[in-house]
Amino acid sequence: MTTVVDPLVAAPSPVRDAHDRGASRDLSIALLGLGQVGSAFARLVATAPPELGRTVKITGALVSNTSREAPAGGVPLTADPRALLDGRPDVVVEVLGGLEPARTLVLEALARGIPVVTANKSLLAAHGDELLEAAWRARVPLRYEASVVAGVPFLGTFDRRPLAAAVTELAGIVNGTSHFILSKMETGCEYSDALADAQRLGYAERDPFNDIAGIDAAEKLTILIRQFSHSRVTTAEIPIEGIDHLLPADLAQARELGGAIKPVVHADLGQSGALSAFVAPAFVSARHPLASLSGVANGVWLKSAHASLFYSGPGAGPAVTATTLLDDVAEALTRNHEARPWCESVAATVSAPAEGRWLVRLTAAHGLPSASDTADLLSSHDIWTSRITETTSQPGSDCRWLVALPCAKHRLARALESLERAAGCEVTCLPVLEDPDA
Amino acid sequence: MTTVVDPLVAAPSPVRDAHDRGASRDLSIALLGLGQVGSAFARLVATAPPELGRTVKITGALVSNTSREAPAGGVPLTADPRALLDGRPDVVVEVLGGLEPARTLVLEALARGIPVVTANKSLLAAHGDELLEAAWRARVPLRYEASVVAGVPFLGTFDRRPLAAAVTELAGIVNGTSHFILSKMETGCEYSDALADAQRLGYAERDPFNDIAGIDAAEKLTILIRQFSHSRVTTAEIPIEGIDHLLPADLAQARELGGAIKPVVHADLGQSGALSAFVAPAFVSARHPLASLSGVANGVWLKSAHASLFYSGPGAGPAVTATTLLDDVAEALTRNHEARPWCESVAATVSAPAEGRWLVRLTAAHGLPSASDTADLLSSHDIWTSRITETTSQPGSDCRWLVALPCAKHRLARALESLERAAGCEVTCLPVLEDPDA
Repeated sequence: MTTVVDPLVAAPSPVRDAHDRGASRDLSIALLGLGQVGSAFARLVATAPPELGRTVKITGALVSNTSREAPAGGVPLTADPRALLDGRPDVVVEVLGGLEPARTLVLEALARGIPVVTANKSLLAAHGDELLEAAWRARVPLRYEASVVAGVPFLGTFDRRPLAAAVTELAGIVNGTSHFILSKMETGCEYSDALADAQRLGYAERDPFNDIAGIDAAEKLTILIRQFSHSRVTTAEIPIEGIDHLLPADLAQARELGGAIKPVVHADLGQSGALSAFVAPAFVSARHPLASLSGVANGVWLKSAHASLFYSGPGAGPAVTATTLLDDVAEALTRNHEARPWCESVAATVSAPAEGRWLVRLTAAHGLPSASDTADLLSSHDIWTSRITETTSQPGSDCRWLVALPCAKHRLARALESLERAAGCEVTCLPVLEDPDA
Repeated sequence: MTTVVDPLVAAPSPVRDAHDRGASRDLSIALLGLGQVGSAFARLVATAPPELGRTVKITGALVSNTSREAPAGGVPLTADPRALLDGRPDVVVEVLGGLEPARTLVLEALARGIPVVTANKSLLAAHGDELLEAAWRARVPLRYEASVVAGVPFLGTFDRRPLAAAVTELAGIVNGTSHFILSKMETGCEYSDALADAQRLGYAERDPFNDIAGIDAAEKLTILIRQFSHSRVTTAEIPIEGIDHLLPADLAQARELGGAIKPVVHADLGQSGALSAFVAPAFVSARHPLASLSGVANGVWLKSAHASLFYSGPGAGPAVTATTLLDDVAEALTRNHEARPWCESVAATVSAPAEGRWLVRLTAAHGLPSASDTADLLSSHDIWTSRITETTSQPGSDCRWLVALPCAKHRLARALESLERAAGCEVTCLPVLEDPDA
């Protein structure tokens, strides 16, 4: 059962009026966490950006080790979060990452009537409904623009615009690490070399698992699905595929076919409570807006009954994330802020994507079935192909690619299994994102 | 002298609280104008979009001829604007177009404390400062998201985000008619045929002058400059070039050179009070986000110290404009709305664009100077070229293209004038928008 909250009538806000307390008073921020993003935020605040129109001061930063070096601006360090909240800051900025103690501290700040700004995608993905409800009930802003496509303001926009927010389909590149690696592989680089490059440049962590396996992207997709469908899904329900099984030859083949392979999140948002979603490397038509991005760039494509919109820019990085956090502080502290209208969301089941085309790679160490044998076997399972390439030799194996005409994934999987058994080859299949204007 | 209004402390709003008057009451809209956009808006409201969460009613539409057929929803027609305002609507939606009576009626609505939503780019370009000041002083929202890139919400976002709004350079495709024509010409179509196609499909008006000459784009650029620099420029100050002198061969040559010719607006927003801006067909590097658009699509690229952002989608069309207007109504009526912080803007002079490369076409009916003579003559004016093509025959004349290395426009113009005199050829030159990541 959905509780519809009238989006035209936000509830009255008890947030203390900064104006009444004198516009010239410093705004005070309690900073929870002092990793890369937290340190960048402290540096940004220390520059006193003139655009803010007033002075902002970080009253303290929560860290586990208070004997570490203090950040820019001489921010005092503390290991006691309650002491920070007792100081009644104007805003709490949470950049601890992870679920606890972030969840407990955000809930406590909201309960005390303190607006919260966070960049914590894992927290929003796992506990977003609980936190948004708490914020709504307390009539206190909770802002999280930096949690998805950190450098591009767009999430907050759709909170306020109900028609534009009626999105029926969305697709995005929301993980810069995977995108950088696939962009490098387009130049012929092997996966492992591309990953090493990403690590050298600071685009990938030492343990890159969350990025390359699609977990980071799935958390962001969970947030996008909540934003645009008011459906409650858990990140674990979303089928994910990583990028580590791809070959440079896959990227080259995609270009031959008039497109590119991109690390994609996708959701079809149909009726409330029923949707399909996936995270996977996908073949993207060259005319799809996502195909125009490269390197670490992120972007989100949103389709509604009214229009198809595309928003792109930097998706990560301490400096740009800090900027978005500080803009969220400005929004949270504007006297006439809106608490996000909170809707009790509907628990949704994630079903398999609708029928679509697939780019399939067949790999074998000792010879592949002929093109006609392959087509015959697949057609006996009612799977039709539009194109089967010649066999090409790759290090240690032969490869052949084919494009399967629109079919459901489970049907394709069944056909490919029997191909694997009959012909002794391995198969890899990627969904196809078609040109949205076609 | 700039009056800085603290963006963190919006003034208290005297707008009547829709909640206090009962959330179930219809919201009432007075519609000024019933052309294509006004009629689409009436149709949209008549569908009672469920996303709004409450019923919206158009209490009357201002028309010059009240004996015309009533629009969808049986909206009463009137020729008396004061009677409409006397009915104390919750919002005025202005889609009259043009300057008067739109300006007078918007000012009167604001003075009466009635929020105004408008799609009128000419009005905003010519009188935006006056209207924004009136809205700010009356503490009443004035929303105009539909005035630039009508289908893509982005302008309102930057009102609330001071750091993201600190844009230093912007470039856009904001006129769908010109963009459609140039996209058709990329397929080899002559200008006149492409224009006829645009008219047949409803993308160009019967008198397309404002679109093809760049006037519509210059009005939108005036609004963008105000939004992102708080500089007051008049549309007439912005140098404009139309697209009607281009040949299909120019578009083909641009592709050869690794880019495309797009109808561009561009501004360098330096110090307050000093900026450069132009509207012109420009050579756009294939790696520039604007090059990824085609057909009637619009897009705006915004560069700040923090990030480069790109927003794209439909720029016009009655249905999509109506949707944006209704979302603006929702924003304007949200109880905790923000009146746009109004800054007294600085009168700015528009100077010539900074040094850049140029794509130059030489045309002559009776023979062109040789490549080496051309290069020699230009180099005697200290203009250096990176590439001069072979002569190609076009209907009635010969053409040759060259790329001039970075130089100021006035220096190039002087050199080209002497080339015109000495060699009896005509010249056309287009600015180059470089790959922003290069």
